[in-house]
Amino acid sequence: MTKTGGEFGLIEWIRRRVAAHPALDTGIGDDAAVLYWPAEKTLVTVDMLMEGVDFTFPPASPEQVGRKALAVNLSDIAAMGGKPITAVVAVSLPRHRGAEFAQRLHEGIEQRAREFDVALAGGDTNSWDGPLVISITVLGEPAGRGPVRRSGARAGDWILVTGAFGGSIAGHHLDFTPRVREGLLLAENHDVHSMIDVSDGLAADLHHILDESRVGAMLFADRIPISAAALGTDDGRTSLDHALSDGEDFELIFTVSAETAQALLVTRPFDTPLTHIGFIEASPGCRLQLADGSKREVPALGWRHEL
Amino acid sequence: MTKTGGEFGLIEWIRRRVAAHPALDTGIGDDAAVLYWPAEKTLVTVDMLMEGVDFTFPPASPEQVGRKALAVNLSDIAAMGGKPITAVVAVSLPRHRGAEFAQRLHEGIEQRAREFDVALAGGDTNSWDGPLVISITVLGEPAGRGPVRRSGARAGDWILVTGAFGGSIAGHHLDFTPRVREGLLLAENHDVHSMIDVSDGLAADLHHILDESRVGAMLFADRIPISAAALGTDDGRTSLDHALSDGEDFELIFTVSAETAQALLVTRPFDTPLTHIGFIEASPGCRLQLADGSKREVPALGWRHEL
Repeated sequence: MTKTGGEFGLIEWIRRRVAAHPALDTGIGDDAAVLYWPAEKTLVTVDMLMEGVDFTFPPASPEQVGRKALAVNLSDIAAMGGKPITAVVAVSLPRHRGAEFAQRLHEGIEQRAREFDVALAGGDTNSWDGPLVISITVLGEPAGRGPVRRSGARAGDWILVTGAFGGSIAGHHLDFTPRVREGLLLAENHDVHSMIDVSDGLAADLHHILDESRVGAMLFADRIPISAAALGTDDGRTSLDHALSDGEDFELIFTVSAETAQALLVTRPFDTPLTHIGFIEASPGCRLQLADGSKREVPALGWRHEL
Repeated sequence: MTKTGGEFGLIEWIRRRVAAHPALDTGIGDDAAVLYWPAEKTLVTVDMLMEGVDFTFPPASPEQVGRKALAVNLSDIAAMGGKPITAVVAVSLPRHRGAEFAQRLHEGIEQRAREFDVALAGGDTNSWDGPLVISITVLGEPAGRGPVRRSGARAGDWILVTGAFGGSIAGHHLDFTPRVREGLLLAENHDVHSMIDVSDGLAADLHHILDESRVGAMLFADRIPISAAALGTDDGRTSLDHALSDGEDFELIFTVSAETAQALLVTRPFDTPLTHIGFIEASPGCRLQLADGSKREVPALGWRHEL
């Protein structure tokens, strides 16, 4: 994490702004950050976002990209039922966009960091003639009952989701709130068997739970919460298809016992909508029951990079 | 850390290869990795390398870039006197280079990870039509006497360096050995006042120590160890200039008391060359005494990105 030269003014600007934090012994300005870290287990996740793939300017603003780049990682920590603690930021800045762009990007990161009490511990700031690439690594601590994995779903579990799905490309993917508080509340107070955040799409990410847990699922079409953005599309695909496959909703899918699910649906431990969309079954694959009672297979569709 | 689609075959390929490690509870295949982490303090560092800036194909091979991308981070941990434990890897793969390229890149990372017993905990694998961008984050533990910072140099300290300097662009920058063992031996057994690894250049990185420690330095030109690659250049700059300013040597600069320095120079605790190049002084700035006894200022030259 040593870099001088043109970025040096920017790094000094960031260093002056970044707040002290109880987790931070030594922050920006050394070869590595030094963290106070009394946890017995540590969660670590990284996501890289690329201009032209994960966002474009416009419609995105630099602040939005900064917020998104941190939020996608916070969403991963939330999906483990964890508390995010600290982040390091690596960035390749397009030279032609200049210093103000870089500052606005950082302000977006800072906003999200403040909102979730995340210490910005350092990073690596580069510039080049290519597009913006930003990679943030977040460290966190598992909450009360330990990390919630994808692999713990059991036949008979109820499948619950936060929020609504589909049409994220219309704007939600740049301005979502990662479900950190919801994930923490769930993991601290309940026996959550499995959990994942929806980045690839509701169907694709549910399939990750099914694959890792070696189980199947039955979903009910009329229970899938569809976002307003997905209801408003007229591209020939149904709003349900959008909800199942669009991706970047950054909501949580989790599975719990019937008893826990019923308790959650009565007590509503948070304001974010909570919906029961189906059941885990022993038989592999994912089935969807339509309103007329007919069933169809739900493949692991979803938004995909192509190698 | 969820990604499906075209990378999915690659991720499965990586997941099958990556070895178990005592630090790793849950590795690749969940929203975040889960680490066993009994340390009270944690070191964290990140470096992003970009094709066309930090390497080009050719002369670099994908394996070399993988090795370099991990090694630059190991060098940062070494400079804190720390032991690297685990790494996460974020990458944007150029689509046109195909799957074998991605595998060879990963093999390079694995080689370095095995060599230094670093657990590959996970990552984020993307592809796009842009150049290769790779960002690795490494977590480590401080050794015996706690992390060694840049800020602890004191007037009267002797300035010591490992290895030789200059001409790294000829190949060393792709195939250096990060000084992890040397940094650990120093931090475990000696009171090292300050340390940094040389990425920006001997002069530039020594200036980081001087700035953070609010001191100055006197160097002796005839004591600067000059690499064979820097001796062989004929671009109008002296080999001493190359040694002072080239960058990417990835050697250690550190400062210790006169007594410790003399003990180290007699006992030679490791095979890597160890050289006394000068002294820390109270007066700010960096001075170089030439063979004829004359002195000149050494600015914080070094290889720089330009924003």
